[in-house]
Amino acid sequence: MNISELKNCSQRIQPYIHKTPIFTSSQLNQISGTTLFFKCENFQKMGAFKMRGATNAILQLSIEQRNKGVVTHSSGNFAQAVALASQSLGITSYIVMPSNAPQVKKDAVKGYGGHIIECDPTHKDREETAKRIELEKGATFLHPYNDINVILGQGTAALELLEDHPDLDHIFCPVGGGGLIAGTGIYTHYFGNECNVIGGEPFEVDDAYRSLLSGRLETNKTTNTIADGLKMPLGDVNFPIIQKHVSEIIRVEESEIIVAMKLIWERMKIIIEPSCAVPFAALLREKERFRNKKIGIILSGGNVDLEKLPF
Amino acid sequence: MNISELKNCSQRIQPYIHKTPIFTSSQLNQISGTTLFFKCENFQKMGAFKMRGATNAILQLSIEQRNKGVVTHSSGNFAQAVALASQSLGITSYIVMPSNAPQVKKDAVKGYGGHIIECDPTHKDREETAKRIELEKGATFLHPYNDINVILGQGTAALELLEDHPDLDHIFCPVGGGGLIAGTGIYTHYFGNECNVIGGEPFEVDDAYRSLLSGRLETNKTTNTIADGLKMPLGDVNFPIIQKHVSEIIRVEESEIIVAMKLIWERMKIIIEPSCAVPFAALLREKERFRNKKIGIILSGGNVDLEKLPF
Repeated sequence: MNISELKNCSQRIQPYIHKTPIFTSSQLNQISGTTLFFKCENFQKMGAFKMRGATNAILQLSIEQRNKGVVTHSSGNFAQAVALASQSLGITSYIVMPSNAPQVKKDAVKGYGGHIIECDPTHKDREETAKRIELEKGATFLHPYNDINVILGQGTAALELLEDHPDLDHIFCPVGGGGLIAGTGIYTHYFGNECNVIGGEPFEVDDAYRSLLSGRLETNKTTNTIADGLKMPLGDVNFPIIQKHVSEIIRVEESEIIVAMKLIWERMKIIIEPSCAVPFAALLREKERFRNKKIGIILSGGNVDLEKLPF
Repeated sequence: MNISELKNCSQRIQPYIHKTPIFTSSQLNQISGTTLFFKCENFQKMGAFKMRGATNAILQLSIEQRNKGVVTHSSGNFAQAVALASQSLGITSYIVMPSNAPQVKKDAVKGYGGHIIECDPTHKDREETAKRIELEKGATFLHPYNDINVILGQGTAALELLEDHPDLDHIFCPVGGGGLIAGTGIYTHYFGNECNVIGGEPFEVDDAYRSLLSGRLETNKTTNTIADGLKMPLGDVNFPIIQKHVSEIIRVEESEIIVAMKLIWERMKIIIEPSCAVPFAALLREKERFRNKKIGIILSGGNVDLEKLPF
């Protein structure tokens, strides 16, 4: 990996994604005691940063692979990202979704031209169904985060942030499967100026925090968090990158996530999903340590069910 | 009134307001069959376009008047706008608010440095209390909309929109007391290129619609609308300007307001208040007539109680 490879990645996906705006808020600066730059991936196409990784992964496929399409299993943002990225590149996407997935999510995938294949709502059936599609259609399987091309795509949000604000002291981002934070770590290492990357993770799914402590991939026994985008287990491709390029992970309580989410909704007038509030919650929890620092926050996505809000 | 006076007004308030962004949405273009440009006054300081009019009105005061401060009665966005505009200009503001106003609104006014004077929750006591402050303090009374300087301030949002998109066919905006739409009408007359201004108004408070029909100021007997920013009666300063510079008003049902509001929240990931959804609801109601047109929509504000959402 080198600087020009990373720049190439960013340029490669540019025609297919939004260069999202960076928002500031004097009120949230005051509350946090820091100067904040929010990278608004909630305004990304399909509403989340996942569009970047999906696009990059698909663009790496050979013509022959593209002709046979791609397959993934997801009921979340990655499903929509693969469907939309495939549509904009003119290839076929097969999205394996559990039969009990919310209709609104199925409709979104259909709206982006994805072919939905329903499966039983078990992890085993998901994987088996995706495997079957790979064999039957010759489609290439795309993993939502445990894939270096996906990781490099996700990190381009941090590159855009650092291009506009090269003097950031820290970049905060959420940790779920680890795609976003691993990518952010790589780009910040090459393009930041003594900038370090800090993860925000719910106490309820703190496998990444514990993995960094123990030095081996830990798992979560339960996933009782409102941050539904962060429930996935940390990937083994992501973990060593995080060990190398992420300086620490700060854990937050569920109530802190809700407070942070509400602050951003109320003061910034933008819609973010609960997972997306986790890094800001992490900063607020330990704000004394970061007083007067310049801080970038990756706002990861805005796909939220308006009928099930926590406030 | 002439072009240079209007440009001066815009320049005068510029240091004290945000030049708000203009958002687009391919999904909402598709749904409406038009090309939309949303002027995001929900991102304005204090969360609404009212900041423009309050700032302009205060900047027109003499030094002597400024030294004695300003007074208004409002429990809505204009209260916050007068408090914040006064704070940024270093003058004293007295805000008359009913004793039963929500604590969150009182806190916002206090946060912007306004002096709150509580009154009984009747229109009579509001006016009498404001009158008393005028006499006691020598403060100048500011009306939220029935004032040409307020009207000219509000219209600067349309000027910014037309500077970036001079070829708009129509500009839609909400109608309450008439400050925003009268100002929008004036600026569009001078700076638009065969662009006309269309109002959106709830059926439940359709005094402006009926006034345009009858040619005299009509009133509302009830104000049962979710669009709480549009309940005020049309002003007699605003009405003749609207007669001259607004081509039509389209009325909408309450359910249409909620649908439009939800579409903007879900697709654009931004928070707007119910009043703010009314012009988009008006466009959707009659979208066949506007097919393929370039349309500006003034998104008036984003101050909404997240614990009382209609969905």
